[in-house]
Amino acid sequence: MSETEISTLGEFGLIESLTRDFRVKNPSTLKGVGDDCAVIDNGGKKTLVTTDLLLEGIHFDLTYTPLKHLGYKAVAVNLSDVYAMNGTPRQITVSLGISKRFTIEHITELYSGIHAACERYSVDLVGGDTSASVTGLLISITCLGEAAEDEIVYRNGARDTDLICVSGDLGAAYMGLQLLERERVASAGEKDFQPDFAGREYLLERQLKPEPRADIIDELKKHGIKPTAMMDISDGLSSELLHICKQSGVGCRVYEDRIPIDYQTAVMAEELNMNLVTAAMNGGEDYELLFTVPLTDHEKVAQMKGVKLIGRITKPELGAYMVTRDDAELEIRAQGWNAFNE
Amino acid sequence: MSETEISTLGEFGLIESLTRDFRVKNPSTLKGVGDDCAVIDNGGKKTLVTTDLLLEGIHFDLTYTPLKHLGYKAVAVNLSDVYAMNGTPRQITVSLGISKRFTIEHITELYSGIHAACERYSVDLVGGDTSASVTGLLISITCLGEAAEDEIVYRNGARDTDLICVSGDLGAAYMGLQLLERERVASAGEKDFQPDFAGREYLLERQLKPEPRADIIDELKKHGIKPTAMMDISDGLSSELLHICKQSGVGCRVYEDRIPIDYQTAVMAEELNMNLVTAAMNGGEDYELLFTVPLTDHEKVAQMKGVKLIGRITKPELGAYMVTRDDAELEIRAQGWNAFNE
Repeated sequence: MSETEISTLGEFGLIESLTRDFRVKNPSTLKGVGDDCAVIDNGGKKTLVTTDLLLEGIHFDLTYTPLKHLGYKAVAVNLSDVYAMNGTPRQITVSLGISKRFTIEHITELYSGIHAACERYSVDLVGGDTSASVTGLLISITCLGEAAEDEIVYRNGARDTDLICVSGDLGAAYMGLQLLERERVASAGEKDFQPDFAGREYLLERQLKPEPRADIIDELKKHGIKPTAMMDISDGLSSELLHICKQSGVGCRVYEDRIPIDYQTAVMAEELNMNLVTAAMNGGEDYELLFTVPLTDHEKVAQMKGVKLIGRITKPELGAYMVTRDDAELEIRAQGWNAFNE
Repeated sequence: MSETEISTLGEFGLIESLTRDFRVKNPSTLKGVGDDCAVIDNGGKKTLVTTDLLLEGIHFDLTYTPLKHLGYKAVAVNLSDVYAMNGTPRQITVSLGISKRFTIEHITELYSGIHAACERYSVDLVGGDTSASVTGLLISITCLGEAAEDEIVYRNGARDTDLICVSGDLGAAYMGLQLLERERVASAGEKDFQPDFAGREYLLERQLKPEPRADIIDELKKHGIKPTAMMDISDGLSSELLHICKQSGVGCRVYEDRIPIDYQTAVMAEELNMNLVTAAMNGGEDYELLFTVPLTDHEKVAQMKGVKLIGRITKPELGAYMVTRDDAELEIRAQGWNAFNE
């Protein structure tokens, strides 16, 4: 057997390579691999399915992540995928792998976060699997949601001249992670170390307790807007824009000065001497919604609070570019976080 | 925070304790935690959901488990849960955590087993998540199935005087594991060691490549039988009988001389000086179906190939006992495998 390191393909390349030979056999499978959720048709409303795996040492570090927040976030990121299809999350299953260093109190704390997220978003816990693990904690959550067939928004519906919109602001979760990392390094070996988070609470909250944008989905409905394409921003805006462009067969222009960035994010980037736009474009874990709407919805979108118009969809031959403040065009590249390269 | 080891509660106790506070909020959740599958109602046929987590070093040992078999088994055990509800599996999601020692060729091999199971049972792969892991391989699979509401069989429908039936034979998967373990120990440090599996192929197949009993579900339909309760035997017959008794509020009597055991299982138990009936009652990983039918279905069940009548359901106050060959009554205890105690 020849030996090829997984990092040569990366996560998306690996999944594409592994799933290529799987043909769809059931008429109830409306949509398989390749969007935020799969779509299943059992005769009534459509069922949306998404799943996420969180591993200690890869996706989270328990030295600065409270277990309750971790439980909340693990649910939140799955709900976000259902909202990104314009659906309503209804049920989750939770599987845990737990090593010997965790006690019942630890796991109860983790579950209190899972419970809080289920209450906040009216989601039912309907199953799971709990096992000992050799090392560390792992959380695998699957979320089921529902949507009427004509409500579902895929990634492949963006068309030339559509407007590109983003909810909230970007880069804060990434800056929160940088901040936590800095304090962890500073505290190493020191007893009673007091981390300095004053004035940075927003960054921490964005990293530790992200909220899926159920409110934006509600607002879209209230304003009578059905996006042509939508996804949530988990890997970073650049990466997600390329997904929509590839799957819709289009290009895009986004404008640097339109990218929504919070004040705390900007201050932190300056302090750490990091490029602010890079953080916003590639930071990831924002769990905001990226969506496109027809040009004719321009006024409706302009009235929505917490949504910013950042660019437009173009013909495919024009490629995917960011227009900088000085009118240069920078090609958008996926610098989304690739765990296999670390 | 006080510190209580997880083994003090065990897997079932832990799950019960953690999920107690979760109330069901959605009318579409027909059945949550506590059966082989959750049952979701989005208006058409009901959706069944089950999930299983397999961890290296806990559930499998790659020194004797070929990756292709592992992929197949990981799917099979999930399908088994859907069949155990009298449903038809339709879709799976597959999440993998992969450490650096695995190459693309390894993961492709694993997926070839997943693919083979999907083809064999006409199931669609519709999503998943792939991540680097710090140590070892982990596989988290969720399966969705469908069933008409009046077809679904839960664990709680067994009634006094019902007959208890089991498909196939029991204990072989456990003996297969003992055999593999013995050869692993014998081969330690030896180059070119040739394990001695001649005449034991059935035991290995039961351990490495279990088949969910789709055929039994078909046969039940053909014979016009709808079980009153059903589940698959993953933890061992004793443990599963107690689940059905507890959830149905009944007792049971099973007869030692009726427990179906293959010849190879018996030979291996003798060779290893192990109690054969204990292996059959508590070995686990058989993935056979345990079900109860009304007394009036006696003749129909008797005609089914590969199904054995092993006892009867009683009033709850009579408890759960095995009647031995010499007519003694032994109380049935759950000695199902508890990973937290190892």
